[in-house]
Parts: sequence; C-alpha cells; structure tokens
Amino acid sequence: MIAETIFVGTELLLGNIVNTNAAYLATELSGLGIDTYYQTVVGDNADRLRGVIEQALSRADIVILSGGLGPTQDDITKEIAAEVFGQELKLDEHTKERIIAYFEKRDRVMTDNNFKQALIPEGAIILDNDNGTAPGVIMTKKSTDITGNADKIIILLPGPPHELKAMFEDKTIPYLNELLGKNKQVFYSRMVKICGRSESEIAEILDDLIKMDGVVTVAPYAKTCEVHVRVTAKAEDEQAAKKLVKPIVNEIKKRLGDYVYTTHEERTLEDTVVDLLVANDLTITTVESCTGGLIAGRLINVPGVSEVYKSGEITYSNKAKRRILGVKKSTLQKYGAVSSQTVKEMCLGACFFNRADVAVAVSGIAGPDGGTEEKPVGLVYIGVNVCGQVTTAEYHLKGDREKVRNTAVAESLILLRKCILEYYSKKNFATLENGKLSE
Amino acid sequence: MIAETIFVGTELLLGNIVNTNAAYLATELSGLGIDTYYQTVVGDNADRLRGVIEQALSRADIVILSGGLGPTQDDITKEIAAEVFGQELKLDEHTKERIIAYFEKRDRVMTDNNFKQALIPEGAIILDNDNGTAPGVIMTKKSTDITGNADKIIILLPGPPHELKAMFEDKTIPYLNELLGKNKQVFYSRMVKICGRSESEIAEILDDLIKMDGVVTVAPYAKTCEVHVRVTAKAEDEQAAKKLVKPIVNEIKKRLGDYVYTTHEERTLEDTVVDLLVANDLTITTVESCTGGLIAGRLINVPGVSEVYKSGEITYSNKAKRRILGVKKSTLQKYGAVSSQTVKEMCLGACFFNRADVAVAVSGIAGPDGGTEEKPVGLVYIGVNVCGQVTTAEYHLKGDREKVRNTAVAESLILLRKCILEYYSKKNFATLENGKLSE
Repeated sequence: MIAETIFVGTELLLGNIVNTNAAYLATELSGLGIDTYYQTVVGDNADRLRGVIEQALSRADIVILSGGLGPTQDDITKEIAAEVFGQELKLDEHTKERIIAYFEKRDRVMTDNNFKQALIPEGAIILDNDNGTAPGVIMTKKSTDITGNADKIIILLPGPPHELKAMFEDKTIPYLNELLGKNKQVFYSRMVKICGRSESEIAEILDDLIKMDGVVTVAPYAKTCEVHVRVTAKAEDEQAAKKLVKPIVNEIKKRLGDYVYTTHEERTLEDTVVDLLVANDLTITTVESCTGGLIAGRLINVPGVSEVYKSGEITYSNKAKRRILGVKKSTLQKYGAVSSQTVKEMCLGACFFNRADVAVAVSGIAGPDGGTEEKPVGLVYIGVNVCGQVTTAEYHLKGDREKVRNTAVAESLILLRKCILEYYSKKNFATLENGKLSE
Repeated sequence: MIAETIFVGTELLLGNIVNTNAAYLATELSGLGIDTYYQTVVGDNADRLRGVIEQALSRADIVILSGGLGPTQDDITKEIAAEVFGQELKLDEHTKERIIAYFEKRDRVMTDNNFKQALIPEGAIILDNDNGTAPGVIMTKKSTDITGNADKIIILLPGPPHELKAMFEDKTIPYLNELLGKNKQVFYSRMVKICGRSESEIAEILDDLIKMDGVVTVAPYAKTCEVHVRVTAKAEDEQAAKKLVKPIVNEIKKRLGDYVYTTHEERTLEDTVVDLLVANDLTITTVESCTGGLIAGRLINVPGVSEVYKSGEITYSNKAKRRILGVKKSTLQKYGAVSSQTVKEMCLGACFFNRADVAVAVSGIAGPDGGTEEKPVGLVYIGVNVCGQVTTAEYHLKGDREKVRNTAVAESLILLRKCILEYYSKKNFATLENGKLSE
C-alpha cells in the first residue's frame, strides 16, 4: 500500500509556518507499514492543486491532503478533490448541526461561510472534527480498470496540527487498519544512538551494513555531537520484523562498543547519564560559564533527577568563580578563565560547595565578541570531577553563539558519561556489562 | 523569476525530522520577491529524485535542493543533479583541501568517503561550507531554446539547518540578488512581537487589520507565551514597501502599548530584558528549581550579557534553597517548596547571595510525577525582586515536563520585563518612551 501526502496552503509556500503535519503523518504512515515516496506542498490555486492531486493518484493508492478546508473562498481543497473524482458536493445535515453547535457553545457569531464546511462529496465517509469546524472526508473512487488495479482513495484532513492529529489518530488510523486488513506489512525500527564518533567514521565502520540490500535498512543521521543509526525492517508482523532487526543492532553494538549509549528511540544522552548516577548512588552538580545553565537544563529535563541533582551554579564572572567555587586568583591571572586549570578548580570547588560526588564545569568563549588570537571564539574547556578524579578537555567549536553553547552542552554530557564509565571500570565498582550501565 | 524547492532525505519521508528548511527557504525566497509554487520532499532514491528534479525544472527557473550531500553512498543529490544537466563530476582541489583542514582542525579521523564531497560538477559555482564538509553548488544549464527561454539553474545546499542557513544567507542570496537585477519586486516585512496577551485577544484587537484587503498583509503567529504579528508589503523597492508597512506597525503599537516588546524580527524577549538592565545599570541573577538553568540559559544567549549577569543558582532540593538562598525551614514546612512564600524568599536571598539588583526565582511541579490534588503538575510560582520590590505570580501550565518548563521560562522573562518596567515607571528613573526601554 502506497500513500502520498499533499499539504495545501500559501502560508507554507511563504514560509509563515513550519510544516509539522508532514513529519507527523510520515511517522504515523510508516508506523502502519504504509510507504510514502513523496510529500508535496502547493498553494491554494485550483489548477496547480488539481495537477498535484492527479499526479499523486497516478503514483499512490491513497492520497492524503491537509489544509484548505476552511470557510473562506480561498479554501478549495474539498472542491478540487471532488472535481478530480467527478463527485458532487452536497449539504450534510449532521455536519451542519455540528457546526451550529460548535459556535453556540463558544458564544461566537457564525457566518454563512461556515456552511461551506458542511458540503460533503456524495458517498464520502465524514470524519467529525472534535476540535474545529472543518470535517475530514474519506472519498473512494472505484476502480474501473479491468487489470484489477485497486480503488483510489483521497483523505482530506484539516490543516491546524491539533485538529489533524486528533482526527488522524481517532478516526483515520482505524479506517486504514481495516483497509490494510490482514495483508498489512508493519515496519519495526530501533534507533542505535552513538556519541563521541563522527558521522563519516560511523559511515565507514558500518559501510557494509548501510549498503546492504534486503528487507533491513541501516541509515545514519547526524545530530549535535551524536550519530543516530536507524535500523528498520518490514515484515508481516512486529514479531517477525523484530527478529530481522535484532541481529543487526547487536552487530552495531559489537562494532561500536561503549560509543553506543542507547538503543531506545525515546532515550536521550542525559537520560543515560542520570541512570548511571542513580545506579551508582552518586550525586551531581554543574557549574557553568558560557553554557550558562543549559547543561543543568538538560539534566533536569529527566524525570526523577531530584534523586541525584541537588544544586548547581552559573558562575559567569571571574568573581563568582572565585567567591562561590574557590578558584584561585592566581589561576585566573596566570591562565585566564578559559583554561583547563580554571575548569579543574571549578569542578573541584563545585563538589565541595554543592556536597556532590560528581561535577561538570564549563568555561569557554561563545562569541561573537571576546575572542583573541590565542583564545579564539569557540575555544571551550570542560572539566569533570568524579569523586576527586578530575579530567579536563579542550574543544574548538564552530558556529554562532547558540551553536557553540549547544555543542559545548552536548560535549559536556559525553565527557561526563565517559568519565563515570572509566571511573567505574578502573575501580571495579560496576562493569560496563552490568545492568543499566551499558544498556 | 520562479523557484521550486526540493528536500531530499528518507528521514523526512519517515517523519524522523521536521522540515524546517522548507519554511526557512520559503521565507527567504519570498523576501527576495521570488515566487515558489511547489515544495517537494523525496527520498534518497535515484529514479524518483531524477523525476522530481526534471519536473521542477519544467515548471521553474531555479530549482533549489537541500540534503543528500553527505559523504555516504546514500547521498546522491549532487550525482543525480549533474546527470540531469549532463555534467561530469570532477575532484575540486580547493574543496578537498578545505575538507582536510576541517578534519585536522577538529583532530578527527577522515575517511576516503569524505572526498566524495569534493566532487563538483564542471563549471559550477562552489559555495564553501563554513559549518561542515559538504560544499554547496550552483549549476547552470544554458538555454538552447530558440524561443528565448531563460537558462535553468540548480542550487544544491546541505541538509543540516545551520549549514543551509549560513550558506544561503552568506553566499546564495548575493548570487540571487545579482541574478534578479533591477526588475525584482521586493517584499518588506516587520515583525511586531507581543508578550502577555493571547493569540485570540490579539486576533480580536487587530481583527480589522488582519482582514484588510490590499498590498499590506497582517498575520499573527502564536509562540510560547508570545504572539508575533508579521506585517508585509510588496513593492518595486524596499523604500516603497517600507512606507506601506510603517503606518500599520505604528497602529499595532498604539493599540497594544507595552505589550509590544520589539518590532525587530531578530530580537528576542531575552534581548529586551538584557537591554532594560543595561540601560538602567542593573545586575541580575536567576535562582531556578523546576526550570533548572533554562532561564539563565536564555539570558546568557544574549551577547554582552556579562555586563549584567554575574552568577546564579539552580536550587533543585529544599536543602539547597535553605543553604544557598536562606529560605526559612519554617516557610518550606508551612507552605512547601512550590509556593509564593518560597519564591519570595528565594528571590530575596538570591540578590543577597549573588550581590545582584534584580532576581527571578522559579519553583514548580513540572511532572510527570510529584503532583497532588492541592498542588497539581503544572503549578508554578515565579518571583521577581527588583531592588527589594518583590512580585510573585502563580501559573497553571499545561503539557509534558518539557512544555511546562519552557512555558515557565517564557513566563519568567515576561514577568521580569513587566516588573522592571513598572519599577521604573513608578520611580520615575526612566520612562517607557525613553531610549531603549520602549524601543
């Protein structure tokens, strides 16, 4: 079963809004095992919209359109779709009553325009809209093709994301599941998340897997300081698809070892750092200069972090580094605030001031100003203290202020994870294979 | 001049990422006065990609593709585009050297794959990538059409948004501007940014302007705790378009008063807060519980913030609130950590501990756990202390942990701005009309 999605709206062509519906529908359709090869955005223009719908119908079994179902003259999606299928629009009493009720409930004045939204192609299935006035529509055109080509289906959904999402989840998925019947193929995928190696290194290490022909696909995606490798298989049911994915995931883990921090899509780097701390009964603190709270911000997004995170500081000025963390005046004078010596003293002082077992300290030049020849914009030092064992590292980061800061945050979490793992492997407190540490 | 955009990547078809490049390019192209009628997303598949490029070339003068320029076998955009134009790829020494330097600078191991990125179609213009290894490419095919059809142009840009954005702004726009010559029509727009009022309130207050027919359009967009209203006009030159936009912007400012915090697209709420502090020679500190560093994170993204921000704390545990900020044990016991009494003591203690003039304090229940009937998930208290004058406010925020935290950060910045403005209007230190305060 092949689907194609079309997004109708001049606001998309002008860039006024980001097309989040495209990603949402893509995720849902691939989850149902329905392939999509194209997504198209087109404006509220009759000829162009007609052309796009006809082309999509020539390539796919199901064409899903979103947007252009509003009450104004601009909104023509339903009209054009009905025209393409040669179907008439008729006033639907049920929808009309729902629209009247919608306005009454909100004490809002209704215009005659709104009744345009109650016009439905004959024979169509109506998808009630519980979050707005535009109903969704499923239209079918019976195949007259004696070669046995399947029927063509057009599904119209509203443009506002919350309306589209609710209507797709509650009313469209059950319809599609029934349509797919027992012949449906499901996708199953795992995401292998890797930190500390570049995309091209990963591409080389996994080259044969990425090039592999067959039912399992391996695709790497670069993220800030991370590479996520999606392993996907298609089969008649989830169990069978899982069986295909598992050995490939294991092979990737074997090749990349500790660089793999999780194989769960929803888990983040900060989740694994917090788990590592919880599993080993450690508390953590953060002391940040250029990243100014963003490392803490990511850690504290993990539910249950209160068990390990009690307090932390943003020590942006030299004075604050001295007063709160006890960084020596002589260190700041001799080496400067952006130096490995300073982050070392910062993360030692941080554990003391915050009564924590582990600390991460960052100091850097995020720009755009403040760089010198010796210490250019993008120079960042990170220090990690695990129970008195301090590691510092130097980074040369690219991009604007925001990019430098976000990259420094990601590198901090990676260094934190690395230092905690190393500490434990040396001390034999826990091994990497045990429990949550290696996942 | 008509352009068409194509976004290449299976990750877009699978919904793994949201296509923010589409909105970015659409905004930029319409700003240049270049019309786009279609946007297409297609996977890394040679036949389908070729088909999409050929169709786009049949409808547009310029076809812009983003994505698929990476070092792996999957990445085929450049190869297919060259094939469509019948041009050969050749190793470009300049690009090769840049790639080598890129890896050397980062102390990262380069693979042979990376040299694939140095292959350039003959005669193409190379757009150096200052943020990654994939160069952009501008390819031209001379028209052989005796009817005088113009040359066709293909522009290849990298997929990662920060690489695409920098390359488009710095290198593609100058090229397009030259190409457009003097016949171009330009769009000019201003963004009126409003905080502290809801989208539906704004829609009502500006109803007549939004519905206005003519060359000026007024369109509101809801952001987290903000509404941005874009006022756009199209004219033969920027001067003429500006003249159309200005009176509408002034009218919106008149109707919304201090709720408007800026009319500059690139300026953020944190920029205006920092300006307000600088203009009045005030220092600020942040003490955060559930937002855990994110308020500081936003403030510190403003270049030059070091003048006003020296230090701040994340006081996640009750102990830290007591030890660092001096919140009374009895206050925590009687009212709890999530209470207006606690944030009041937090922001008073914050100014003392950090030697700052202004403090913002946040304490709340971000969820998913920790809520009670009396104090449900989403309950957040914010306190602001401006030179000893304390204001506290209670919020009931919706959404998951991340949403609650981000909303609390936005509300904190709004309350900060409000309290500083009120303090000064009462004390007559500066008036809203003076200088930077009202912009």
